[in-house]
Amino acid sequence: MLAHRLIERKRDGGRIEAGEWRALALAYATGHVPDYQMAALLMACYLCGLDRGETAALTEAMLASGDRLDLSDLGRPRVDKHSTGGVGDKVSLVLAPLIASLGVAVPMMSGRSLGHTGGTLDKLESIPGFRTDLTLAEARTQLERLNCALIGQTAEIAPADRKMYALRDATATVDSIPLIAASIMSKKLAEGLTGLVLDVKRGSGSFLPELPRELELAEIMIAIGADHGCPVVALLTAMDRPLGRACGNALEVEESIAALKGEGPPDLLEVTYALGAEMLVLAGTVADHDAARRAMEQSIGTGRAAEHFQRIIEAQGGNPGVVDDPAVLPQAAECELFAAPRRGFVARVEPRAIGRGIVEMGGGRTKVDDRVEPAVGFVITARPGDWVEVGEPLATIFARDRTGVDTGRHALGLAIHIADEADPPLPLVSHRVTNRGVEVLGEV
Amino acid sequence: MLAHRLIERKRDGGRIEAGEWRALALAYATGHVPDYQMAALLMACYLCGLDRGETAALTEAMLASGDRLDLSDLGRPRVDKHSTGGVGDKVSLVLAPLIASLGVAVPMMSGRSLGHTGGTLDKLESIPGFRTDLTLAEARTQLERLNCALIGQTAEIAPADRKMYALRDATATVDSIPLIAASIMSKKLAEGLTGLVLDVKRGSGSFLPELPRELELAEIMIAIGADHGCPVVALLTAMDRPLGRACGNALEVEESIAALKGEGPPDLLEVTYALGAEMLVLAGTVADHDAARRAMEQSIGTGRAAEHFQRIIEAQGGNPGVVDDPAVLPQAAECELFAAPRRGFVARVEPRAIGRGIVEMGGGRTKVDDRVEPAVGFVITARPGDWVEVGEPLATIFARDRTGVDTGRHALGLAIHIADEADPPLPLVSHRVTNRGVEVLGEV
Repeated sequence: MLAHRLIERKRDGGRIEAGEWRALALAYATGHVPDYQMAALLMACYLCGLDRGETAALTEAMLASGDRLDLSDLGRPRVDKHSTGGVGDKVSLVLAPLIASLGVAVPMMSGRSLGHTGGTLDKLESIPGFRTDLTLAEARTQLERLNCALIGQTAEIAPADRKMYALRDATATVDSIPLIAASIMSKKLAEGLTGLVLDVKRGSGSFLPELPRELELAEIMIAIGADHGCPVVALLTAMDRPLGRACGNALEVEESIAALKGEGPPDLLEVTYALGAEMLVLAGTVADHDAARRAMEQSIGTGRAAEHFQRIIEAQGGNPGVVDDPAVLPQAAECELFAAPRRGFVARVEPRAIGRGIVEMGGGRTKVDDRVEPAVGFVITARPGDWVEVGEPLATIFARDRTGVDTGRHALGLAIHIADEADPPLPLVSHRVTNRGVEVLGEV
Repeated sequence: MLAHRLIERKRDGGRIEAGEWRALALAYATGHVPDYQMAALLMACYLCGLDRGETAALTEAMLASGDRLDLSDLGRPRVDKHSTGGVGDKVSLVLAPLIASLGVAVPMMSGRSLGHTGGTLDKLESIPGFRTDLTLAEARTQLERLNCALIGQTAEIAPADRKMYALRDATATVDSIPLIAASIMSKKLAEGLTGLVLDVKRGSGSFLPELPRELELAEIMIAIGADHGCPVVALLTAMDRPLGRACGNALEVEESIAALKGEGPPDLLEVTYALGAEMLVLAGTVADHDAARRAMEQSIGTGRAAEHFQRIIEAQGGNPGVVDDPAVLPQAAECELFAAPRRGFVARVEPRAIGRGIVEMGGGRTKVDDRVEPAVGFVITARPGDWVEVGEPLATIFARDRTGVDTGRHALGLAIHIADEADPPLPLVSHRVTNRGVEVLGEV
């Protein structure tokens, strides 16, 4: 009866109260509200909206439907980063060990790839032996020892969100700002953080390709964090092209390790440093962004960051040899260059076409239970704005067979536009949003 | 993938094409689209609407998801009546045998009670032995012999509608005009009719308590009927108070039999004659409404109508003795008068409060699989506009125990308003809608 009444009220444009969200999330998590009623409610929420208070209450209700990491006696600041998802976005793999190597705890709970975007868990699992299914108790022990645990959303964390997220995916109710904000924040608040940095992706490859909606999402999440005593800072970063060069699970691990050794592509390092500086300042272990940047550069320069990643990999059952020798990673059977079909400027490298290509080559998911092929993907050296001659190599295709190469070639053909002119790409880091407002960092 | 795409499109205000509705209805009826996707789509339809073409296509798709009665070689006109539902609305029980007694086939497929409204099947099943679960073949044979079969929606008829109706009930998506119209018309068109009369209820006890929406529903159904070569006439009738005096399954059977003998309450007979006249004119067996009325009065006056009901009851396994002796029906254990708490005019008799009272006394359903107690209910003699003295009997309560009597007393207290003045009730039959437009019959 509760669910029916709430569906009716939301359908008619009404509000759902905090106590009602709590009862509903609990009933749904425990199987007392069927999926079909939740699906109708989610569509009513999608179309009629949730106000700020309802979004906060839904977050709180999903958080309360499960356990949370209690890290209050860890004696260290606890900071995480969350990205709204993109193509080639391996920042988590670089940032988590880097920040952990600087004495700040990073309890990082990540997701899997779905649709055109990649997922940190799939990338990590391309390292032979790597386990992401730690229990909360194991994660806690590892955080004490190494300042970092790289895990998935366990069954104990926000089970209402877990079920609801799968349902939203099946019912075309994913891209609703309040539902996205509540889903992310319920998981992040369960990590027992003292600070959170959001990487809100912008541009054609992001979930919300319009600036006002991206700012709105950032502002809602900042407000929810503030309610829970967790300061949140958001950076808006470019996803009108892939981040870095590697796109595909094992290929991104290899590039992340290179970045931890200071050899990564400049755009990846720049976004990593920008987000990392916010994390360190939130943690209070450095005075300002300049000091944060110096600390990160030093950890990378001395080899401490890469070594820290090695220890994390070993702790989670992975082959630590990967840090010294990327050949430990699964290798694609076929590997071929993709050349420029004409001369001109690289006008666009479309992340969605790249991401869909990887899915078609077997490296991503169209359904939650699809198996992922770790070795396939692309290394794309062409950047928007580059001048290229006909026949010049733009990318390398990594596939499991000849059919995969053809699929990859077709995807790159759709993704990489060469033209006589190229518009400037989005600035890598364009806006910084805090509880004090929006700062424009890069020219749009 | 089909369902996801259609949900997305409807959510964004787009149209679903006829071929897509067909594929969807078939996939849903055969279990290839899960309830949760259909629930999200239904909510998107509820909030974003369906245009006339989509409503017709959905009707057609649900009709095509199952079998239909092929009565084309019956050699007789085939006419049915459908009511949008009310309290005390036993018109079907009087009308079906009455019209069948006049040589017109009435293949009547009815529903069960749900929420505050009663259901013809539950009423019929209060007659000991009465079977409403005839197969389509049995119904056909009986129609040949007796011009009438009183059955439920079989598993063969519009299975997509059957599943969708149950889902709408659980997901607060019932009162959407296009969804109501498509649901009713898919079932009625499966009856192989040559004409259909709609009884669209008006007023506080109806599903759509606003006149423009009632007219819209009538017009949509008339248009769908026209597309299928089935002329449809709609009458808008009053449901601001119960129809007749008896409310409750067995009590309504008793009153219907009385009406078939010419002894029913005047309002019940008037609505029956108005709808029956439309049926006979659509059937083409009489020249006009006056001739239709004379034919019906004659059938009732000579006892032919009651005798015809007796033969139908016998054919469907029921105890035909009920026509001569209502004591054959289940009897309530407790029976008590309800007296006027003050003097004044009966200002209102609220059908919803009456209907809910019957449900609470065990005579209706809150869930599809609730068992129904046939004997409970009310006989309400007080009519809006009556002057009553304090202590004067207004109604009789029929209950299974003392608690039921108290529940009934409470419900009547809420339903019957006595005041110093009474506004005039709605006219019994206020509008007539055909494909030529709207005719106002009663002053509003």
